[in-house]
Amino acid sequence: MVNSIALDISNNSNLLLGIDGGGTKCKAVLLDNKNTILGTGIAGSGNPVNGLEQAQASIVESACAALKDAQNKHAGLASVELSDLTAGIGLAGVNIPKMHEQMTHWGAPFHSKHITTDLVIACLGAHNGENGAVIISGTGSSGFSYVNGVSKNIGGHGFPQGDKGSGAWFGLKAVETVLLSLDNLAPNTLIKHHLFKTLKVDNAIDIVSCVAAKPPAFFAQLAATVFIAAEEQDDVALSIIHEGANYLKNMAKQLEETGSSRIAFIGGISQFIIPYLIKERQTKVLAPIYPPEIGAVFYARQQRITEKNS
Amino acid sequence: MVNSIALDISNNSNLLLGIDGGGTKCKAVLLDNKNTILGTGIAGSGNPVNGLEQAQASIVESACAALKDAQNKHAGLASVELSDLTAGIGLAGVNIPKMHEQMTHWGAPFHSKHITTDLVIACLGAHNGENGAVIISGTGSSGFSYVNGVSKNIGGHGFPQGDKGSGAWFGLKAVETVLLSLDNLAPNTLIKHHLFKTLKVDNAIDIVSCVAAKPPAFFAQLAATVFIAAEEQDDVALSIIHEGANYLKNMAKQLEETGSSRIAFIGGISQFIIPYLIKERQTKVLAPIYPPEIGAVFYARQQRITEKNS
Repeated sequence: MVNSIALDISNNSNLLLGIDGGGTKCKAVLLDNKNTILGTGIAGSGNPVNGLEQAQASIVESACAALKDAQNKHAGLASVELSDLTAGIGLAGVNIPKMHEQMTHWGAPFHSKHITTDLVIACLGAHNGENGAVIISGTGSSGFSYVNGVSKNIGGHGFPQGDKGSGAWFGLKAVETVLLSLDNLAPNTLIKHHLFKTLKVDNAIDIVSCVAAKPPAFFAQLAATVFIAAEEQDDVALSIIHEGANYLKNMAKQLEETGSSRIAFIGGISQFIIPYLIKERQTKVLAPIYPPEIGAVFYARQQRITEKNS
Repeated sequence: MVNSIALDISNNSNLLLGIDGGGTKCKAVLLDNKNTILGTGIAGSGNPVNGLEQAQASIVESACAALKDAQNKHAGLASVELSDLTAGIGLAGVNIPKMHEQMTHWGAPFHSKHITTDLVIACLGAHNGENGAVIISGTGSSGFSYVNGVSKNIGGHGFPQGDKGSGAWFGLKAVETVLLSLDNLAPNTLIKHHLFKTLKVDNAIDIVSCVAAKPPAFFAQLAATVFIAAEEQDDVALSIIHEGANYLKNMAKQLEETGSSRIAFIGGISQFIIPYLIKERQTKVLAPIYPPEIGAVFYARQQRITEKNS
């Protein structure tokens, strides 16, 4: 996927760290200026909303892992340290001004850092730094477009009040609908069978004990129960998927209206929902060109150019 | 409401404490054997699911307050202590076996105690200890019937996965629908105006900051935004109320099928939803005869008779 013909590590300023801090994991990549992947690293949650210190620790841990990986593969990098590197960092949650400020003022162990949202880096990665839009459906959901310097955000309001069509939303719908059917207040559904199996329970009280006060990532793990039941032609599951897909479809429509001719669907749930989107939307669903952590490197490069020119 | 002709405090065993431990407050009442209210007390959360020690402290605090209130009003009670009293205690959450066990093994400062669910005491109170059913819509929602010794539970699965037609559910629906309308993904609604006013915000990001990770009681405080907009004939609000009312109506139908000719609607939201239920259900909505804390006294009396006979 990434050009690996040449390796340009003659100058540390050619090396850029890209970091994608999501709710469940934080991914880092070390790139040279020819987009060669020198090393990659991974750590725990990088979403500062779930804990600022945890996110900062995950960013550093993933960066260290990426650098170590690169040093194992390329002897010429032996003397490089984190403090030599410029990092592009895309994080969920930094659309909240307070979070952005706290992360910007963080004394990170890098030469310099450029903080932006997870959406910006996903979009830059997906479209190789060009105009385009992304719709993310992972634990949460949201849409973002970046066209001729103008960005637009849509959705992404969190769980349980927003994030329709996301993993957490599908999981919550699964639990809701099974509890209703167990009370004979909604039709029976095959989701029940799969939910019982996943949670290792066989009644409503035990479902509630399992899910009470659980975070979105827990509900997202239950999303598969809906997609499996839908493959078995379960009407309730198909109707939930239709509702979620319809939301994402309307989101895509709005992003197209901003002038994004390219829309990429990303995130762990998108692979399950894309077949339904294609069926209902009769449109081309584009795969992202690069992953978000590489988009984070593109962001750092753009910012460096902007700073030089200002 | 309660017979207050005679005052029978000749024997401490005639005095019974009734306690209703809910999610936001714990209410206590001291009754004699002629159902004269001798004193009442109130304290914070009595729901052990929100914290076992807090619930136990609230129970004791409300009981102390009720006893003190009674002693201020009736000189003959001066020497009575909590350890002289038998308590009937109805608590949210003790339908979960572990919670019931923990509360039963609690060394409460009473002579003896009889623990049951908030639904049992609400039903006993509402129907003066006779057969009947209750539908509760407060912070949460649930239904319960008790007919000829057979009880039936319905709903009450908690927030956000259950409790349709409850205050927390209406509040969540308000937030969901306003966030969708701000993204132009749902029709505009007057709920927006009332939600902005209640939360003192004027945009989606600030709504999300206000509601993120908030407990059901917080969302329940937003329920009024839906009912006010519905009075202004807002279609979105009317449709949410229709969905919630329809759920409670179907719940009532199932409880009627158990043989409950009397159904009482209780809880803080019921007063707002009853007009819609009457309109849609064309049925008589009964007011409860006594409140749950008096139902808790009825429960203690029943249990005392059962224990004597066994």
